[in-house]
Amino acid sequence: MTVRVGVAGASGYAGGEVLRLLLGHPDVQIGALTAGASAGMTLGQYQPHLLPLADRVLGDTTVEQLSGHDVVFLALPHGKSAKIAAELGEDTLVIDCGADHRLEDPAAWQRWYGGDHAGTWPYGLPELAGQREKLKGAKRVAVPGCYPTVSSLALAPAFKDGLVEPEAVIVAVSGTSGAGKSLKPHLLGSEVMGSVSAYGVGGTHRHTPEIVQNLSKVANEKISVSFTPVLAPMPRGILATCSATLKPGKTLDDALAAYDNAYADEPFVHVLPSGSWPTTGAVLASNAVQLQVTVDPDLRRLIVVATIDNLTKGTAGAAVQCMNIALGLPETTGLSTVGVAP
Amino acid sequence: MTVRVGVAGASGYAGGEVLRLLLGHPDVQIGALTAGASAGMTLGQYQPHLLPLADRVLGDTTVEQLSGHDVVFLALPHGKSAKIAAELGEDTLVIDCGADHRLEDPAAWQRWYGGDHAGTWPYGLPELAGQREKLKGAKRVAVPGCYPTVSSLALAPAFKDGLVEPEAVIVAVSGTSGAGKSLKPHLLGSEVMGSVSAYGVGGTHRHTPEIVQNLSKVANEKISVSFTPVLAPMPRGILATCSATLKPGKTLDDALAAYDNAYADEPFVHVLPSGSWPTTGAVLASNAVQLQVTVDPDLRRLIVVATIDNLTKGTAGAAVQCMNIALGLPETTGLSTVGVAP
Amino acid sequence: MTVRVGVAGASGYAGGEVLRLLLGHPDVQIGALTAGASAGMTLGQYQPHLLPLADRVLGDTTVEQLSGHDVVFLALPHGKSAKIAAELGEDTLVIDCGADHRLEDPAAWQRWYGGDHAGTWPYGLPELAGQREKLKGAKRVAVPGCYPTVSSLALAPAFKDGLVEPEAVIVAVSGTSGAGKSLKPHLLGSEVMGSVSAYGVGGTHRHTPEIVQNLSKVANEKISVSFTPVLAPMPRGILATCSATLKPGKTLDDALAAYDNAYADEPFVHVLPSGSWPTTGAVLASNAVQLQVTVDPDLRRLIVVATIDNLTKGTAGAAVQCMNIALGLPETTGLSTVGVAP
Amino acid sequence: MTVRVGVAGASGYAGGEVLRLLLGHPDVQIGALTAGASAGMTLGQYQPHLLPLADRVLGDTTVEQLSGHDVVFLALPHGKSAKIAAELGEDTLVIDCGADHRLEDPAAWQRWYGGDHAGTWPYGLPELAGQREKLKGAKRVAVPGCYPTVSSLALAPAFKDGLVEPEAVIVAVSGTSGAGKSLKPHLLGSEVMGSVSAYGVGGTHRHTPEIVQNLSKVANEKISVSFTPVLAPMPRGILATCSATLKPGKTLDDALAAYDNAYADEPFVHVLPSGSWPTTGAVLASNAVQLQVTVDPDLRRLIVVATIDNLTKGTAGAAVQCMNIALGLPETTGLSTVGVAP
Repeated sequence: MTVRVGVAGASGYAGGEVLRLLLGHPDVQIGALTAGASAGMTLGQYQPHLLPLADRVLGDTTVEQLSGHDVVFLALPHGKSAKIAAELGEDTLVIDCGADHRLEDPAAWQRWYGGDHAGTWPYGLPELAGQREKLKGAKRVAVPGCYPTVSSLALAPAFKDGLVEPEAVIVAVSGTSGAGKSLKPHLLGSEVMGSVSAYGVGGTHRHTPEIVQNLSKVANEKISVSFTPVLAPMPRGILATCSATLKPGKTLDDALAAYDNAYADEPFVHVLPSGSWPTTGAVLASNAVQLQVTVDPDLRRLIVVATIDNLTKGTAGAAVQCMNIALGLPETTGLSTVGVAP
Repeated sequence: MTVRVGVAGASGYAGGEVLRLLLGHPDVQIGALTAGASAGMTLGQYQPHLLPLADRVLGDTTVEQLSGHDVVFLALPHGKSAKIAAELGEDTLVIDCGADHRLEDPAAWQRWYGGDHAGTWPYGLPELAGQREKLKGAKRVAVPGCYPTVSSLALAPAFKDGLVEPEAVIVAVSGTSGAGKSLKPHLLGSEVMGSVSAYGVGGTHRHTPEIVQNLSKVANEKISVSFTPVLAPMPRGILATCSATLKPGKTLDDALAAYDNAYADEPFVHVLPSGSWPTTGAVLASNAVQLQVTVDPDLRRLIVVATIDNLTKGTAGAAVQCMNIALGLPETTGLSTVGVAP
Repeated sequence: MTVRVGVAGASGYAGGEVLRLLLGHPDVQIGALTAGASAGMTLGQYQPHLLPLADRVLGDTTVEQLSGHDVVFLALPHGKSAKIAAELGEDTLVIDCGADHRLEDPAAWQRWYGGDHAGTWPYGLPELAGQREKLKGAKRVAVPGCYPTVSSLALAPAFKDGLVEPEAVIVAVSGTSGAGKSLKPHLLGSEVMGSVSAYGVGGTHRHTPEIVQNLSKVANEKISVSFTPVLAPMPRGILATCSATLKPGKTLDDALAAYDNAYADEPFVHVLPSGSWPTTGAVLASNAVQLQVTVDPDLRRLIVVATIDNLTKGTAGAAVQCMNIALGLPETTGLSTVGVAP
Repeated sequence: MTVRVGVAGASGYAGGEVLRLLLGHPDVQIGALTAGASAGMTLGQYQPHLLPLADRVLGDTTVEQLSGHDVVFLALPHGKSAKIAAELGEDTLVIDCGADHRLEDPAAWQRWYGGDHAGTWPYGLPELAGQREKLKGAKRVAVPGCYPTVSSLALAPAFKDGLVEPEAVIVAVSGTSGAGKSLKPHLLGSEVMGSVSAYGVGGTHRHTPEIVQNLSKVANEKISVSFTPVLAPMPRGILATCSATLKPGKTLDDALAAYDNAYADEPFVHVLPSGSWPTTGAVLASNAVQLQVTVDPDLRRLIVVATIDNLTKGTAGAAVQCMNIALGLPETTGLSTVGVAP
C-alpha cells in the first residue's frame, strides 16, 4: 500500500516535522508541498535538514495543488483550515495540525480564537479513553495542541479513576518551536538563550479550554485547570508538572495502578521506573511520552511530570499516528520511541 | 570606612559571585581567599572572569587564614559552616551562604539535612516582614536558599494579608549553577543543553521546609507547600510560578494592594507594570527581584510569577546586602538592579 | 539477512548513538550490551532515550559477553580496543569507534597517544578516494575521528586535484558530546552554556595527525595542517572552516568541478547550492555532510565550510555505514540524510 | 564633574549596553533616550533589565531631543549617524557606535557599505599603537566594529613587530547579539539554539576592510586578511582564532615579548598565563580582552586566540572608554575587567 500525501504549510516547523516523519514512513509517497508567502521557493531554503526534498518547489496552498492525494496534512495558521478542507472532498483524509476543529463548544471557540466555529473533528489523541476507536476510518482528524497532549496524558488516568479533586495546576515548560517561525522580538535567539519566561499566565493561554475539555470528558465532570506555560531556552520539548489533590482514601498505589492500567499497552506512553524522572532530552524527535507519578505526603497532592517533543508527539508525530489509525496501518509505522540524545 | 573581608569557598560558584560583587563594592578590601581541594592554586584557574584577583593563591579553609577580617563569607558545602564559625569569634561578622543556620526546627534540620542542628542565625531576607531589623548589627547571618528567596518573596504578601488558603503550589525553573560545580553526569553540558528536567519532586527538595518556615511565619499559621524544582538549560536564573486559592471575597485588587504595600519601598523588589511578565534574563547578574501578579478567574487562583538570579539575589547578592545592613552601610552599596541582557 | 550485533561501551555517547541507529536498522538484531563501571545497571539509567532497550542489563566488556555476534562495535576509551579485538576472532566484524587503529605511522601513534601501536585497520571513510573498496568484506574497520571526518571531506577534493598549496588552516567548532561523558569541570553545563572556548591550539590536538594522514594520501605529498578545535554551547555538531591558498592558475570553477566530481554520487555528502552555507542544525542526528565552497579573491584563498553531526557521521553513523559496506548491504541502510530541526 | 549624556538608539542591543554601563558610571547623568519606531514607548518595554530607567519614555531621534548634552552616543543603523552628528554641533562629544566613520578609504566605504562616505573620525581603539593620543580631547569618535576590535588586538603586536608574513586567517565565533534585534528568520531562537553556522564567508563580511585597515596601519604594509565569521548559540561573546606564518628567524619568544610589550600597561587587555586559553564566558559583560599566543611548530604558524564581549568591549564598553579618554576622565571609570560567570 502506498499512500500519496500532500502537505500544506511545508515551510513551517510543524510542516517540516510532518515531512521529516513522512520521509521515514515506508508506505508514503510525498506529493505536493505548499506554502503561503514562501510559494515559489524551494523547500531547501526553508528546511535545509530535509535534504531529499531540497529541490522541491513550494506551491500555493490551493485546492488545485492539494487535490489528488490520499492524505493531506494541514499545518496552517489557526482559522485557515476549514475552507481548504471543505474543498478537498470527503474521500481525502484531511489531518489538521491547527486548532480549528478541536473545541466542541462553539462558545469556547468564539471566546478563545474568535470567528465562526468550524465544527469539531475526531480528536487525534488515541491514548485518551475511547478516542482510538473514533479515529479508525475517519476522514477528518483534529490533531491536539502540544500542551493539551502532554497535560491530558499526564492527568487523564487520575481523573478517569476519580482519584483527585476536580482542580488541577499545570506548569508546562516548553521549547521555542511551539511558537512557530513568527518573527517576534521575544523569540529572537538573543532574547531566549539564557532566559526563561512565563507567558499566557492566569488562564489566558488558548490551550486551556482544550485541556479542560479533555479532562472533563474523562472525569465525567467539569474539571478546572490552572495552566501556566513557560518558555525555556531550547528549540523543542515540553515538560509539564501537573498536580491535583488526592481524594480522601486514595493513595499513590491507586494512582500507580491507574497509570499502569491506562498505559501498559500504549506503544508511545511510558511510565518510568520508580525513582526516574522525565527529561525532554530523552524524547527529542521521538513520538514517546515519558511520565512519572508521585504523591507529596504533606499535602496529599498527586504530582505527575510528563514530557513530549512538542513538534513530534505534540504535533506531527500525532498527525502521522492518526493517519496510520485512520488508514488501518499499524499505528507505529514510521514512528519511534527512540529519542535523539544527547 | 573600609571593611576587610575574607571568603571561604572562593573556587566555587557562590564564592565566585561573592567576589564578583565585592570587587565592585567601594568599602571593601578583599583579604584571604580559601578553598578545599583547590587550596594552593591561583584563583584565576577557577574563576577566570575575576581578572583583578587572578594571581591570588587560595589558602586552606582554616581559622588561621580567615581570622583578622571584619567580615567572613562562608560559601561551603552544607554542614561545614558551624565549626569554622565557632572559631572565628563573636566580633567577626560571619555570613553563611550555606544551609546550616536557616532552619529553626531541629527536627526539620535532622529530617532534611541530617546530623546535629547548628542553631539558627538571623535570616538574611530583609524584605520579609520584620526581618530587616533583626539583621542590623548582627554578627551572624544565614543567607537564604535561592528557591526559598524567590518563592517567599512571591507569596509572602498574599499570606501576610490573609488573601489565600494555606496551601501553595510552586514550580520553579532554575539554571544549573544552583547545583554548584559538583561533577555529576546529569550536570554535564551535553546533558543539560536542549533539555529540561524535573527533580526533587513530591516534596523531597531540601528547600521545601525553608519555604514553609518563611510563609508560615508571615501567615501566622502553618502553610503547606508543594514545591517542584525544574532544571533548565541556562547557567543562571530562577523563574518561579507560585499559586494558591484566593479566600472568599478576596480579589486581584486586594492582591495588588498587598504587593504594592509590601514592596513599594524595597530597593530590589519590583512588581512589573500590568501586562509585563518576568524573564530571568532581565535580572541576570543583578540583585533585583521582578514579579507579576494575576488571578485566574475560572479557579479564583492567585498566580505570582517571580524571578531572580540564583547566584546574585539568590545567594551572593543577598549576602552582600546583609553585610551592608549588619554594618550599617547603605543597603544597596555595591549592588544593582541593573541586569545583563541580552 | 539478520545480523547479530554486540556493542561494547553502550553507556557512553558513542555507544548510545550506535544503538540509536541500530534500532532503526532493518537487518540488525541487537545482542550483548557491555560497559565498564556501569556493568550491572540497566541501559535505561544511562540512555533514557533508547526506550526499547531500557530494561537491558549491561554486561562486562569481556570476550565472553561479546563473542557469538556477527558484528561487534567497540565504543571504548582509546587504547582499550586492541586486546578485546584480538580475542574476538577473525570471523567477527569488529568496528572500532576509537582511535587505536587509525594511524599508520607507529611513531605518530607513539607521539600522540603513547604506548604500543596496535596496527592499522581499513579506514572507515568510504568517501575518501579508493577507500570504499578496502572496506568491502573487511573484518576490521577503524572509524575515523569526528574532526578528521569533516576536515578531510572538506579539503580532499582540492588536494586530490592539486588545486591548493600544501598548507591548510582549519578551525572547527564542535558541540560538547565529542568529549564524551567524562566528568571534567570545563564540561559542566554551567561552564559551557553561553560560552565558546578554544582548546588543543597550536597543533596539539590528537586528531591533527589523522587529518594530515588523510590529506597527504589524497594529495600524494606531505600536507601541513594548522588545526584548532573550538568548543561551542551545543550538544552535537561540528562546523569546520577550512582554507588553503589556490595554486597559480587555479580558480573557483576548478574547485567546484573537483567537489562535484568527488561527491556527486556520494549518498551522504552534499555540496549546497550557491549562496547557501552549512549549519550544524541541518545535519543533526543524520549521516549527512553538508558543505559549501568559495574563493576569497583578495587572497586567492579557497575556503570550504563543512558540517556533520559528530556523533552520527562523525562516529556512529560512519560505523554503521562501514558495517553495511563490509557486509555487502546497501550502504545507506538504516541511515539517513534527514536531520532533526529545529 | 557630571557629564550629561544622551543616547540615540536606546531600544536596541548596543544602546541598551551603553545605558547599562552609564548607569554604573559615577560621573554621568543620563539625559535623553531616543529611538526610531519605538519612540513614545517606555524603555522598560525594550530593556527590562535596566530597571532604574524603566519608566523613561523614548523620544524621536532628532537634534531637538539630543541637543543640550555634553555627550551623545549614537547606536543607530549604518548610514544614519552622519546627518544627526552634523546637526549636533562641534562642542558636543559624539560617539558613533555605527560604521559610518570608521573606514578611511572612500572607495572602501563605497564598496562595502554603499552611498556617500561620511568622512573618518578618530578611531576608538586606544590600545592600537598611537591611537589613544588621537582620542584625547576629541569631539567625534568612531567606535570600532566588534570583529575588528578582537581581530586587531589579537594580531597587531605581531604585525607591528614584523614577526609574521602579511597574510592572516581569522575565524571568529560570535554570539547572536552582534546581529542586533533585526527580525530575521535565521536569528530566531529555534534556529540558533543547538546550531552553529558560517556566514559572510570568502571575504564578504563588511568588517573585513576595517581589519585590513587596522593591521596594515600597524604593519606599515598592506596586510591581506581571510576573515570568516561564525554564529554560535549564545547571546554574547566573540572568540577569534587568528593566525599567520612566522617570518624566518622569528620565534614564539619574540611573539610573547611583542604581546607583553604591547599590552603590559593596558588596563583591559590581558595575555593569559601559559597553558590557559580564553573563553568568552570569562569576559561576559566586561570590557576585558583575554588572549593567548602560541606557535604551531609543524607549520611555524603563530596562532592567537582572543575573546571579548561583543556588546561591551566590542561596542558599548569601547564607547564609554573613549568617552573617558576624550573627556580626560580616568580611562577605566565605570568599566571593569570582571566578567559575569558562570
